[in-house]
Amino acid sequence: MITTDICLIGAGPVGLFAVFEAGLLKMRCHLIDALPQVGGQLSEIYPQKPIYDIPGYPAINAQVLVDNLMEQIAPFNPGFTLGERVEMVDRQSDGSYIVTTNEGTAVHCQVLVIAGGLGCFEPRKPDIINLERFEGKGVAYMVKNPEQLRDRRVVLAGGGDSALDWTVFLADIASEVTLVHRSDTFRGAPDSAEKVFSLASQGRVNLVLQSTITSINGNGHLQEVNITAKDKTVTTLAADHLIPLFGLTPKLGPIAEWGLTIDKSAIHVNTTDYSTNIERIYAIGDINTYPGKLKLILCGFHEAALMCQSAFRYVYPDQKLSFKYTTVNGIPTF
Amino acid sequence: MITTDICLIGAGPVGLFAVFEAGLLKMRCHLIDALPQVGGQLSEIYPQKPIYDIPGYPAINAQVLVDNLMEQIAPFNPGFTLGERVEMVDRQSDGSYIVTTNEGTAVHCQVLVIAGGLGCFEPRKPDIINLERFEGKGVAYMVKNPEQLRDRRVVLAGGGDSALDWTVFLADIASEVTLVHRSDTFRGAPDSAEKVFSLASQGRVNLVLQSTITSINGNGHLQEVNITAKDKTVTTLAADHLIPLFGLTPKLGPIAEWGLTIDKSAIHVNTTDYSTNIERIYAIGDINTYPGKLKLILCGFHEAALMCQSAFRYVYPDQKLSFKYTTVNGIPTF
Repeated sequence: MITTDICLIGAGPVGLFAVFEAGLLKMRCHLIDALPQVGGQLSEIYPQKPIYDIPGYPAINAQVLVDNLMEQIAPFNPGFTLGERVEMVDRQSDGSYIVTTNEGTAVHCQVLVIAGGLGCFEPRKPDIINLERFEGKGVAYMVKNPEQLRDRRVVLAGGGDSALDWTVFLADIASEVTLVHRSDTFRGAPDSAEKVFSLASQGRVNLVLQSTITSINGNGHLQEVNITAKDKTVTTLAADHLIPLFGLTPKLGPIAEWGLTIDKSAIHVNTTDYSTNIERIYAIGDINTYPGKLKLILCGFHEAALMCQSAFRYVYPDQKLSFKYTTVNGIPTF
Repeated sequence: MITTDICLIGAGPVGLFAVFEAGLLKMRCHLIDALPQVGGQLSEIYPQKPIYDIPGYPAINAQVLVDNLMEQIAPFNPGFTLGERVEMVDRQSDGSYIVTTNEGTAVHCQVLVIAGGLGCFEPRKPDIINLERFEGKGVAYMVKNPEQLRDRRVVLAGGGDSALDWTVFLADIASEVTLVHRSDTFRGAPDSAEKVFSLASQGRVNLVLQSTITSINGNGHLQEVNITAKDKTVTTLAADHLIPLFGLTPKLGPIAEWGLTIDKSAIHVNTTDYSTNIERIYAIGDINTYPGKLKLILCGFHEAALMCQSAFRYVYPDQKLSFKYTTVNGIPTF
């Protein structure tokens, strides 16, 4: 049994930074992540993309940010259980929790912090014949590395911001981009929709409106996409990749069964300390929601800091918390 | 008359980063600061000190952080009025504001954001004869550059965290450190108080308890400090520097007259968008307060991001705001 002060579910940038804020208050952390490496979406989805909105970095490569965070928290010696998924959370009679993974790893903690990002959610899969058969063989629900789509024939489906943004982005990369949407108007940002219409008028993307993809085929790898229009005509399109972008479903997994208040597929927290409705359970980063919530890494950093101030009372019930600036005191390692 | 979308009072790190978040939403900013340079406390008080709690930077020199923020916001071409103090804020009939400085510079803006840090506050001055006469001549109310105190005889006064922390810090730098406190217990963190008692027992700092400084003297520059004990005995101490650390008074200056709700010397805001009780006026960074508030730069960054989402409605009343990630869209400059 691993024993720690704070167990974090999720080792993305926000979970990692929480180790630092906890460490300043002399609280130890253990992080569990289903992915085989730390960094969450940054390392898994876009390690080579620059991020422009980390304060103090005009631009920073996503993986470099993860590496820097790992260096920043190293003095506090966090524990990691990677490549395992949390399956059970058992409340003990003294209020602490024992968290158990699918591999049987058990972590005893005073405070549980869910920093699961979007990782606890699953992509919404449209009703397309053979869709799951070609997952990883041409079908993907997110663009992990745009370079893998260079000079390939890509079909996107959806009408929201993701579908619009990736259509614009991939127009410069893929040899052929087709966007299929069931309506002729888009839910996404008006200026993004404008850009897509403009690219379509230049012949740089194919826009197939009032249509849905009904089935796909291929020999081992995706080769064709069958599109049914509102008037029932079916068109077959040769394609190497299909990326349906219909958002994420609230598949919170076991977390959903713990009785947490869920609001719009996210865990509802209060903004004083980012605590959930269950005592000693907090949620920070993209997985939580509250009035004004923005799914930005920098917001998760703030949430982590306030969470730690609140968690302190459970780890050190007899101590008075005093707030310190690192510029005066430096970093007390352990 | 300067015309802008958002006028920021305060060009510290939080005010600077607000320019970036505003820019992503195509809002222009103008910043006014009473200091002659940008960076607020970072540039004015501790430019050469490392900061350890900026997420993604294991350590960063305060001035480097300011320089990086300036580079990050450069694409959005902010305007600056430095070395001037805001004296008047006039609400126009259409809801916009005209902000006027002591030098007569006028800025017309749709939204006013107070990011004044601690700059709008004044140090609380104890009742010591001749105190103001020696300001800048040995008397200071904050430690701007500890190196200036190297090998000097320093007297500190106060019983809170600042007094304790600087006593510990200066023990290694000054030739002689004396801490004068009217009680024999401290309000600051117990472990800081312990450190001070331990240094005193080693003879590395002088602790003068149950005493107050009643007068100071010198010939041009501070030379002696007169301390009166509870039993009325007066001791005279030779000293080069006196640093009274009794906190800051809520001298909000003209801001106090605008009718803003003030709570514990700070401007009360709500956490949905960091708006004040006056429409179109926001407060971000160290100058605001709300339940859970931490005076950390990283928290101000979060507040700036949420503020901008809310301010958008006043700058573009007819447009729908759509939230964007910089990793997908990059930076739209102007």
